[in-house]
Amino acid sequence: MEQDTRFMEMALELARTARGQTSPNPLVGAVVVKNGQVVGMGAHLRAGEPHAEVHALRMAGEQAKGATLYVTLEPCSHHGKTPPCAEAVVASGISRVVVAVLDPNPMVAGKGIDVLRVAGIDVRIGVREQEAKKLNEVFFHYIQTRLPFVTVKTASTLDGKIATVTGHSRWITGEAARSEVHELRRTHDAILVGVGTVLADDPELTARVQGELYGRQPVRVILDSQLRTPLNARLLQDQAAPTWIITTPSAPEERRRTLSHAKGVTLITLDAPLLVTDVLKRLGELGITSLLVEGGAEVNGSFLRARAIQKIISYVSLKLVGGSQAPTPFGGTGFATMDEAVSLTNLSIEQVNEQDVRIIGYPQWE
Amino acid sequence: MEQDTRFMEMALELARTARGQTSPNPLVGAVVVKNGQVVGMGAHLRAGEPHAEVHALRMAGEQAKGATLYVTLEPCSHHGKTPPCAEAVVASGISRVVVAVLDPNPMVAGKGIDVLRVAGIDVRIGVREQEAKKLNEVFFHYIQTRLPFVTVKTASTLDGKIATVTGHSRWITGEAARSEVHELRRTHDAILVGVGTVLADDPELTARVQGELYGRQPVRVILDSQLRTPLNARLLQDQAAPTWIITTPSAPEERRRTLSHAKGVTLITLDAPLLVTDVLKRLGELGITSLLVEGGAEVNGSFLRARAIQKIISYVSLKLVGGSQAPTPFGGTGFATMDEAVSLTNLSIEQVNEQDVRIIGYPQWE
Repeated sequence: MEQDTRFMEMALELARTARGQTSPNPLVGAVVVKNGQVVGMGAHLRAGEPHAEVHALRMAGEQAKGATLYVTLEPCSHHGKTPPCAEAVVASGISRVVVAVLDPNPMVAGKGIDVLRVAGIDVRIGVREQEAKKLNEVFFHYIQTRLPFVTVKTASTLDGKIATVTGHSRWITGEAARSEVHELRRTHDAILVGVGTVLADDPELTARVQGELYGRQPVRVILDSQLRTPLNARLLQDQAAPTWIITTPSAPEERRRTLSHAKGVTLITLDAPLLVTDVLKRLGELGITSLLVEGGAEVNGSFLRARAIQKIISYVSLKLVGGSQAPTPFGGTGFATMDEAVSLTNLSIEQVNEQDVRIIGYPQWE
Repeated sequence: MEQDTRFMEMALELARTARGQTSPNPLVGAVVVKNGQVVGMGAHLRAGEPHAEVHALRMAGEQAKGATLYVTLEPCSHHGKTPPCAEAVVASGISRVVVAVLDPNPMVAGKGIDVLRVAGIDVRIGVREQEAKKLNEVFFHYIQTRLPFVTVKTASTLDGKIATVTGHSRWITGEAARSEVHELRRTHDAILVGVGTVLADDPELTARVQGELYGRQPVRVILDSQLRTPLNARLLQDQAAPTWIITTPSAPEERRRTLSHAKGVTLITLDAPLLVTDVLKRLGELGITSLLVEGGAEVNGSFLRARAIQKIISYVSLKLVGGSQAPTPFGGTGFATMDEAVSLTNLSIEQVNEQDVRIIGYPQWE
């Protein structure tokens, strides 16, 4: 493998170590290399803390002079919570910079590179670009649309049921698949369900490891146009994470009063009927960059109809349960013909354990 | 690899070449080896024609003396359509016989081996036994139960739909998956659907290659308690294969008269309501050893409830279509709780093409 590729992969690996903790910032990794030796490395760990380049240059110290910097995202050129990295790179004496991908924000893309080039630094762009984009798929989507990157997670039997005809659903998948879901939650800004799921399953929607809360907890978002969420729902009682209830002006005033006083609960009122596009817009405005939808058939179906899904993570349990009235992962009105069905691309298909398959794909909206 | 294993795999490979053409007989392959050289080989090609051992011994001729015979199934000891193979083996001068698996018929299992041993031949049993059993899973099941080996084939979207809410289903899977289905049909004695599928899709249910009939055609079986199959259905018009309509005494007499005169059609009347167990019993009596169920949700669901499925071949197309009223692969009443769901074992999960995954499994009925 080419040296640039090898060191960029190292930088990507560093970036990944902070997965789930940098939001709303991207994951970034950096490596400083001199005479084929790594003399500095770093990753961006948390919003407000130094960027990856800064960590790596600090570690390199005097050795940065004449060295090559590998960084997974274009160094910033603006004064944010931290000073611009491009200037820090110039000041360090680095003579060559290899960048995986430009900043996705069209307002600033290329400006960091300009700073470097003006200072006489040799710059190469595009090494492992696809991997770098995928690593920050959430960040890229949010910066460009100001809407959360929506991932719908489903768990169904091989015959497409998310519960039996009686509504029984514990458990469809095995333990390995279920613990992956907690990891998924930990890496999202928010989780969304419909009030139907709250009423049926009384879920906690927290990220747990062996039953204990673990890591950053996502905001829990409930779509509840009539405020039917019961006050004793676990989501309202456990104080484990903020709970946002999205409702409409037609919700009963008395329910509104009651719920607005519940600890950790925020009511968000949008026009009726609740539209997926309005919900996403508001969540984006509130700084939610990634949304994990763990809805029932109706909620998932409405996201599908709205073409508002960026990624699907589908756990298929290799068993059959039958039942023409049993709910499926995507309900609602659906598409009328097979030609309208949305295909998934960039597929990953993997057996999680003896019984469950994980299928990840990206809906290909035209 | 051990020599016995190596030559038995060769024999299994020979057996496979006749797939789909030996029913009701099993697939059998045989290899004669002398001084490490193959001196004869054969496979059973068609019911009524010589068994694999006979072909292989004929090819070996005088060289069979003192040689080893590898055969995938215990040589027969009874006079059927052909003379007993065990005697032919003895007469040939073979000095050692390696057998993959004993005859599944408990009435004759071991008797062929006895004939060989009495004649002083050294016999080894059980080399590649699992493969040999799987190769003849249909034959083993039929011999032991006198019921057809039931394979249910389904094609659904990732969200578990076999059609849209409007009933549109062409096409769910891509061309590669659909052409595999024709190969599946060719290797089954009969295909079964409900009259609902006939009315909705007017299918031909023949085995075709590039649109042309190809190979042995399976009997087409329609479950039709009220004889609603239209006289102009392709299944009744094309004369491509026999069509059996299974009905009940309550079907209108006039429909019965009309359909019983249709060319190539056989009416089979069973007690009402039609039960899966009765249907299978009758088909078994009529010599159907393997049945491919290509039903809609209701027919598949009734086979599931009756626990009358030996194998599942499920094509999952990696797309989403949504719709709470869209049909799923297994409908009917279904099981009430997830604990009752039937798990699949001996799984094979393979991507058929960019868009479709083939999942094969065996329901694990307790």
